[in-house]
This record gives sequence, C-alpha cells and structure tokens, in this order.
Amino acid sequence: MSQTHASSPNSVVISDTIVALATASGVGAIAVIRLSGPQSVGIINSVFKGKDLSKQASHTIHFGTIQEDGTILDEVLVSLFIAPKSYTKEDVVEISTHGSPFIVESIIKLLIKKGARAAKPGEFTLRAFLNGGMDLSQAEAVADLISSNSQASHQMAMQQMRGGFSTQLQHLREQLIHFASMIELELDFSEEDVEFADRDDLKGLIYQINNVLHKLIRSFEQGNVMKNGVPVVIAGKPNVGKSTLLNVLLNEERAIVSEIAGTTRDTIEDEMIIHGVNFRFIDTAGIRETADKIEAIGVERTHEKIGRAKLVIYLIDPLETMNEISEQLNYLRGLNIPFLAVVNKSDLLTEELSGKLKQFDLAYISAKNAEGIDELKEAILEKVNLHKISTDDVLVSNIRHLEALQKTEGALNRVLEGIENPITSDFLALDIKQALYYLGEITGAVTTDDLLENIFSKFCIGK
Amino acid sequence: MSQTHASSPNSVVISDTIVALATASGVGAIAVIRLSGPQSVGIINSVFKGKDLSKQASHTIHFGTIQEDGTILDEVLVSLFIAPKSYTKEDVVEISTHGSPFIVESIIKLLIKKGARAAKPGEFTLRAFLNGGMDLSQAEAVADLISSNSQASHQMAMQQMRGGFSTQLQHLREQLIHFASMIELELDFSEEDVEFADRDDLKGLIYQINNVLHKLIRSFEQGNVMKNGVPVVIAGKPNVGKSTLLNVLLNEERAIVSEIAGTTRDTIEDEMIIHGVNFRFIDTAGIRETADKIEAIGVERTHEKIGRAKLVIYLIDPLETMNEISEQLNYLRGLNIPFLAVVNKSDLLTEELSGKLKQFDLAYISAKNAEGIDELKEAILEKVNLHKISTDDVLVSNIRHLEALQKTEGALNRVLEGIENPITSDFLALDIKQALYYLGEITGAVTTDDLLENIFSKFCIGK
Repeated sequence: MSQTHASSPNSVVISDTIVALATASGVGAIAVIRLSGPQSVGIINSVFKGKDLSKQASHTIHFGTIQEDGTILDEVLVSLFIAPKSYTKEDVVEISTHGSPFIVESIIKLLIKKGARAAKPGEFTLRAFLNGGMDLSQAEAVADLISSNSQASHQMAMQQMRGGFSTQLQHLREQLIHFASMIELELDFSEEDVEFADRDDLKGLIYQINNVLHKLIRSFEQGNVMKNGVPVVIAGKPNVGKSTLLNVLLNEERAIVSEIAGTTRDTIEDEMIIHGVNFRFIDTAGIRETADKIEAIGVERTHEKIGRAKLVIYLIDPLETMNEISEQLNYLRGLNIPFLAVVNKSDLLTEELSGKLKQFDLAYISAKNAEGIDELKEAILEKVNLHKISTDDVLVSNIRHLEALQKTEGALNRVLEGIENPITSDFLALDIKQALYYLGEITGAVTTDDLLENIFSKFCIGK
Repeated sequence: MSQTHASSPNSVVISDTIVALATASGVGAIAVIRLSGPQSVGIINSVFKGKDLSKQASHTIHFGTIQEDGTILDEVLVSLFIAPKSYTKEDVVEISTHGSPFIVESIIKLLIKKGARAAKPGEFTLRAFLNGGMDLSQAEAVADLISSNSQASHQMAMQQMRGGFSTQLQHLREQLIHFASMIELELDFSEEDVEFADRDDLKGLIYQINNVLHKLIRSFEQGNVMKNGVPVVIAGKPNVGKSTLLNVLLNEERAIVSEIAGTTRDTIEDEMIIHGVNFRFIDTAGIRETADKIEAIGVERTHEKIGRAKLVIYLIDPLETMNEISEQLNYLRGLNIPFLAVVNKSDLLTEELSGKLKQFDLAYISAKNAEGIDELKEAILEKVNLHKISTDDVLVSNIRHLEALQKTEGALNRVLEGIENPITSDFLALDIKQALYYLGEITGAVTTDDLLENIFSKFCIGK
C-alpha cells in the first residue's frame, strides 16, 4: 500500500548505508565510489590502511590503500563529508580509485561485505530529499541536469535545481495556506455564521494565483520543447532533396538518399544543437499521391508530423511552375505553423527563373553542394525565437508538474464556483486543501511512496 | 631529434597547466575534471564562486559554482592538492561536477579559455614521472592496473606500481655502478697497470646478476600469460563438440554451432576468469584432412595455435575406436604441451564402452548438457597451476622490459668474454656502461623523448 508522507518527509528514519559507483561505468583514469549513511566512515575505516578516518574533519582528503585479507586492492584517495554537510545530509565517503572496472567491482564487493548495501537508482538523491536537503522538483532537476545536452535544457534544469521553480510555487502555496486556515477558523465558529476569510479577497487571490498558474502551464510547451528539442519538419514534394538537406544539417549520412522518388518511407528524426538550442529535425516521406501502400502510410505520418511541428522547412524545386509553387505556399499558410519556404537545387537557377521567383518570399540553398546552409540555420533560429528567451524565466518542463498545476487550477476553479454559488465553508476548505495538495506534490511537501518510487527509479544508479 | 634525459628526467621545467576529464566518459552521477600545473589554482579560482581557493589548505574540498559570464555552468565540489602532495607532484585541482557530458565539455572549454591546455594521453602520469613521483616501470604499471581485468593481472600491476619490480632492478644497478666506477678508476691510472676491480669478484657479481636476470626473463612468459590470459586451445576431430564446449565455458553463444562437420573455419578467442586467473579459450577448426580450401587454412592455423598454447583440451568422441583414441593420445603426448584428454558426449556412454575407456586417463563431460564443466574448470586450473603463484613474486610482463633485460644480459656476457680473453679496461667499462644503460631504461633513469612518447601515448587521456 502506498504510504503518504504528509508535509514531513524527513520523519523517515534511515539506518542503513548504501554504496555505488558514482562516475560513468567503463575504463577511465579514475573512478569514484560513494558511500552514504550512518556507517559510511566506519565501513571505509575497516578496510582503509592510512590515517584513522573516524578522527578526520569533514571536507578533507586522505591517501591510503584499501586492503582485503592483507592484499592491496588499490591505492585510493578518500574524501570525507560529515553529516549534515553532504549531498545526502548523511555521512558521505567518496573513494577515488584507479579507473578499472575490476578494481571498482572488487572494492564495492568488499564494502558490501563490510555492511554496506548496493544503492538503488537515484537512492542518494532520494535520501537528499528525505533528509530535507532539497525539495522534490529540485531532486527531479538533478536528473534533468545530468541528461541535459544543450545550453537551453541545461540552464532550465540548473535553474530548477537551484530552486527557482520551487520558490515561486512555495510563495503561492503560503498564500493559499493563509486562506485555508482562515476558513478552518470559520468552521470552529460555524454556529456563529462569521466569515474570517473575506470572500472578495479570496477571489482576488485566486485570480492572482490562476494568473501565475496559467503562465506556468503555458510555459510547459516551451519548457518541454527546450528539454526535448524543437521539432522541425522538413517537407516538400518527392525528390526535392529533403533527405540530402537532413544529411547536410546533421553532417552525417543518416537518411538513405537516392535518386528514386519515394525512397524515404518512414520519418527519420535526429537532433542537432544550433546556438545552444536543441532541434529535432524530422525528415518525411514526400507528400504526393502514391499507389505504393507502405509509402501511403508514410505520407499520412507526414501530415501528422507537420501538425506537431514548431516549424516547417518546405523545400521547393526551382523547376516547378509558378502556379505549383504558389499553390504550395497557400497550403503552408493554411497550416498556421511557422514555415520557411526554401528553394533547393539553387544551382539549377537561370536568371530568368530567378526573376520570376522574386514574387515569392523564398530562401535559396543547394543541399547537395552545402550552399546557403549557414544562412538557413540562422533563419531557423530567428523563426523559433527560443535562443532569446531569458534563462531567468521559470519554465515548466516536467509532465508530472504540468499535471499537478492543471489539477491545482481545477481545484481553484471549484473554489471560485463555491464562492459564486455559495457553499458551506467546509466544502470550500476541502477544495482549497485539494489545491494545496497538488501544489505540494510538485515540491514534495506531499508525497507517496509510489510517487517517489516512480520519480527516482528513472535516475541512474549512484546518483 | 630524440633528446636523452640522462639520469635526471626531473630537470625538465614544466610551466603549463593541463586539463582533462579523469573519469570514464558517458553519463554518470558525477564526473571529475582534473587540472595539473602551476596555474591550476589560479585558473579554477577565476571561474569558481565560493571561497577564495588560493587561501585553502591542501587536501581540502570546497563547494561552490562554476560561472561563465554570470551563467552558472554547475554546482561543483573542488578538491585541492598542493604541490608536492599530489599525483603529479604539481598543484592539482579536481572538480567534481554533475555527470553530464554537456557540463563536462562546457567546463573544460571554459578552463581552456582561462589558460589551461587539453592534456595528451597519459600526460598526468608522465608529469608524475618527470617530477620524480614514480619511476618509469611504476608509471607503466598504472596503465596495466587500469586495464587489469583479473585478480592475477591486477595483483601483478599493483606490485609493480608499488615499486616491487624497480627495487630489485635498482639493487642490481647499484652493484654494477660500483664496478663501473672501479674500472673507471683503473683508466685514470692506466699507465700503472693496476686492477682496482678484482676480475674474479667482477665475474662473481656478473654470475649473480645474470642469475637474477635469467629469473626475470623467464618470469616474462608467466607474467605475460597472467597479463594477457592463459592461452588454452580446444582441439579434437570435427564435430566432437568443441564449439559447444566453448559456448558452455563462456556461457554465451559466441561460436557458430552446427551439425555440419567443419563449421568452425577460423579460430575464435574469448576470455574467461576462473578463480582470479584470466584464460583465453581458443576454439579451432577441426583437425582432419579436408578438400575445402578455406577449411584447410583453418586446420593449419589450429596446428599453429596448439604450438603456442599453455594447455590443450582435447575432445574425444566416445564412439571412436580404442585404436583411434590411443593414436590421438600418443599425438598429444608428442606435443610436449600440458593437455587434458576429455571424452565429450558422455551421455552416449554405454557400460561396456566405459569399461573399455578405463585403460586411458580421461575426463568426462557432456558439453551439450553442461555436465562435468565445473570439474573440467578445476582440472584446467590444476594443470596451469597459476593460481597458486605468490603475488609477491616479481614477474616481468612488459615486452619493453623483457627486451631491456635481454640487452643487459647480452652486454654482461660481453663483459664476461672480455675478462676471459683479456681486453683493455676501457672496453670493459664500455660494456658495463651498456648494461647500466639498458637497466636504466626500465626504471626510467635513462630515457629518450621517443621512449616516453611511445609509452605514454598508450595511456588514456586524463590519466
């Protein structure tokens, strides 16, 4: 059964000591093994030959050997972090060994023999949360930070880890708590029919809170895009050079390029970072009527993909008629998605053609000769306009947070309704408590074992 | 041109500061970036927001952020190692970051911008050697230690890194230096025809030294085998179950097993650790006359492989005639290589057959049913007898060391000849100096840039 740690997660008593490799697995110059828990220092001391580690200060480093039955497993450096001055707020020991998987395995086995337990994924960060070292949204940001691969996603995770996100929510929550307590007071005096919580003030606050919630909920789309990459669809008629452009953009041969129209059947995605913004480029099956069934499915998927894109790069063949081009541009405008209309194969342009094409707002590239690509990248950045976003803005990028925000909003709307069509204070108090609960789920003020399990199981072991 | 650092490698002045990722690449909970050189503390201090690191003691750890143009790249822990109390004997700074390749790359780029230089492979250990922190054979052992994957190879590298190997050589070298100086003295008094170095004493010493050299040279075979794995050939007639046995031993499907005789054309090698000893199991093409040309090459290779093996596991089909079996056992005895004759497909044995087979010294397994495999492993260990070797024994495992030892031996033999067929003291002195030079090459008392380049280029970056 799922246990609820209401408000005080740090009431959980942790008595065992966990161990795991903290650095990436594989061969390196060094590797770091991490212990956390009340027996950390005792366990390392029982296998360490050097100074008596139990007598050393926090944040100091000690050279010595790790020995098992008189055999030296390695020469190591041991770093001590004494509670609460550590990542987990427990005693933490970091052992810096030579970076051999064999040595790491031997030492971890020995530490387990001496009383440590192999850590589960994310268990160090879970302990940091349970011991009050960070709130839940900060803990989640640690995982985001480690997997961030662009400047934008990195800055967003960093800001969340450092509490920017939580601060804003915490502030909202405190205001609500104030009203909840006022209404609770009314319940105590219910026979007297008094209103300690002014209904108009409450409405005012809820409008104010809803404003912030809206902003946060709206930011999700942007936050999600920055975390997972801006989806950009490359579309256009068959054989216009979509796969070639994708290859040039990615600087490698991912898509199958061929002279035969209709070669690209499935959509191919790949990521690329332009000026710190992560893009997901999506190559698509050529849009055209086709008798080939497999390809027909591909065309359907293309329309789907276009619908979800933040930007469409639409390639045009310079040898198409002006009518055809005009038709396609009209189609693009109808999509209501930002697009760039780009003439590929610009090497085929005659002066006459160039003149005629001037009536349209077009960019020009030659994917085959890699010409105009840098200008295209600049145009893409300009269109999505994400690189200019201040990293001080609070962006929601976590679907769990989005859901909690939406549920908070729902509960607050019920409070508003309850004020408009008067209900008793106890029902009003219930709806406010619901809103408080959902907000608390984000920062971890309210958690369940299931929720924690779900969040931390996605971490890597050792974090 | 190759420069010789005779005797005093530490005379080289190192003025720049190097930086590299020290932990394995890839995603982990944390990563460690290492700086070494005179500007280490200054460089980190210029990007670190927290305490003033230039005022902190050696072997202490400091929490703070790394910032670039006001943007936080990461929250980090910085460990300080002030010269000469560090791995390289220079000022060393280790930065423990969140284990994201993006963060690591960003921070290294920033440190380079602030004056550090990207380290070359093995450059930290090279500096440790140049600054007198370890001799050359110890530095080489660091690389061996990191790549060690069995208890035996690990212990051998650990012993060498801790100086066991060098001590013995250093002692030999000092004795020789004594004689060299005596003979130099004779040169000064050459007109008086005196012998300060008693020729019989010198001969006695050289015999004594040669004894040790022999022992070290002989140990190479064993050391090499422990480092690279004991080569064990699995041989036997076609279709007797060699590939099946290899698969069972390796617990995975590496070799193509088929009912068709002659399936295994090339030799397949794979490694396995039994009781801390590393084995290389080699599956071979069945030995038989064959019309198939490709297979014929395979059979030739098998004979080659058998010649280089430490042990042959020879599989016998229980349905062969007693004559055939007897013939094969005679062939095996003629090889002068330890072997284990093993009846496979023991499930096909009748009581009558078992009785007849008792005349031979055979083991019994069923590779298909994985029966008798543990007993076979024990028998293999018993035969190669490596697991009982004391790890206190000095073993040479490095081909470079072997060559230097052999050259030393050659020079000493010329000294002996020179004593027997008297030559002038100056020629004698020359041969002794040669011997000293080759011995010095092992410990690094004598080095050239080419030699160092050759050794350290095999290290990983960051070590």
